[in-house]
Amino acid sequence: MKGNLFIIGMGPGDPELVTKKAERILHSLSLIAYFCKKGEIGHARQIAKPYLTYDSPELRFEYPLTTEIPHYTPKYKDMLETFYDHCAFNLRKKLDKGQDIGLLCEGDPLLYGSAIYILERLQEQYSIEIIPGIMAMNGCWSRLHLPIVRNDQTLTILSATLPLDRLLIKLNQSEAIVIMKIGRNLAKIKTALQLTDLLEKAIYIERGTQNQERFLPLSQIQNEKAPYFSLILITGKDN
Amino acid sequence: MKGNLFIIGMGPGDPELVTKKAERILHSLSLIAYFCKKGEIGHARQIAKPYLTYDSPELRFEYPLTTEIPHYTPKYKDMLETFYDHCAFNLRKKLDKGQDIGLLCEGDPLLYGSAIYILERLQEQYSIEIIPGIMAMNGCWSRLHLPIVRNDQTLTILSATLPLDRLLIKLNQSEAIVIMKIGRNLAKIKTALQLTDLLEKAIYIERGTQNQERFLPLSQIQNEKAPYFSLILITGKDN
Repeated sequence: MKGNLFIIGMGPGDPELVTKKAERILHSLSLIAYFCKKGEIGHARQIAKPYLTYDSPELRFEYPLTTEIPHYTPKYKDMLETFYDHCAFNLRKKLDKGQDIGLLCEGDPLLYGSAIYILERLQEQYSIEIIPGIMAMNGCWSRLHLPIVRNDQTLTILSATLPLDRLLIKLNQSEAIVIMKIGRNLAKIKTALQLTDLLEKAIYIERGTQNQERFLPLSQIQNEKAPYFSLILITGKDN
Repeated sequence: MKGNLFIIGMGPGDPELVTKKAERILHSLSLIAYFCKKGEIGHARQIAKPYLTYDSPELRFEYPLTTEIPHYTPKYKDMLETFYDHCAFNLRKKLDKGQDIGLLCEGDPLLYGSAIYILERLQEQYSIEIIPGIMAMNGCWSRLHLPIVRNDQTLTILSATLPLDRLLIKLNQSEAIVIMKIGRNLAKIKTALQLTDLLEKAIYIERGTQNQERFLPLSQIQNEKAPYFSLILITGKDN
């Protein structure tokens, strides 16, 4: 009998924003896996800490260091494909021995999540259950008491990794907006929002629902770079 | 001392998709409030059932019957404003006596939620905490194992209540799409998706994560009307 893979959304950061279902499944497992950067604990692993009552091996998948290679190049894509192949290989070895595994994911696994690439590699041969998670944006707009859309308003969720020309088109077509993956794209995003007359409406949030949470109007941010756990919110026109 | 208002996201339907935080707060409260249709239990109240261990009064806010009045008319808007005033008045009465209240909301309170109108009426005078919830869309794409966006794809969340011409513009500008509030707008949505060559990509889901969950390609749906708890998902172009 093969083991089951549980792809578990761990929410935005506050461990209390984990679902009852995620908690139950975590308690039933003796092996977890997660993605992280070299030298860091891993955000999903950090959130899971209060729910891990056992002391057992973990599969730690460290992203390859890619700061030297531009993200739009085929070389970067190849490197990531190889990385996900490697992760899938290691999960398969355990699943084939009948071991159940919980793959921990920050936010919701299927919105921009690395788990997508694992799902694609394993879903034909293995039993997989996906547990949705509270997304960073939900955590952030709740903390800010910011109604994001009402009535027939449209919400657009954008990746800050888009090139400037694409961003300008998308921003001009949008009402309420969430911009994710800010990081090193902060300066580009500020330019894009300025050019589309949206800068004054934009709210910047860093580490929403976590310790050291911080939010302020984007126009007041002077940094060139934002931490990975940051996003920008713009509410609909009626607000 | 005034009481505190907790606006609690109860998730998409499966009671296990409630957060630990929502559970803790529900257990601490002796008064809950919720919206519902006349003659129905109320979706948020239904989800909360396993978490309500006490037997105490509840504030039940029944939406006015508005099927006779077109939703875009000032009369309809007035009727709803009066209704939310009435709800806020009843919450104030209890809060002023020092009673804490949990306002239960399906999905996430601040995405198209009725709680938005309560928040606006009470936030100046009362202490309010908002607990985010798993949205219906998160529950649905997880059940379907459907990666909704990856890389630099854009996700657009649309209300089916938009007029056809606006829908056509929005659909033509979008990549991955979620359409909410289907209900009586099903025929219009099918027309809009057909005219934008998206019908074959659209997946229809009814009561996602709940009992009687049902999903199939939208092109196979013959009904004129969908239940309130239904939505349509279209993944990004790379999928």
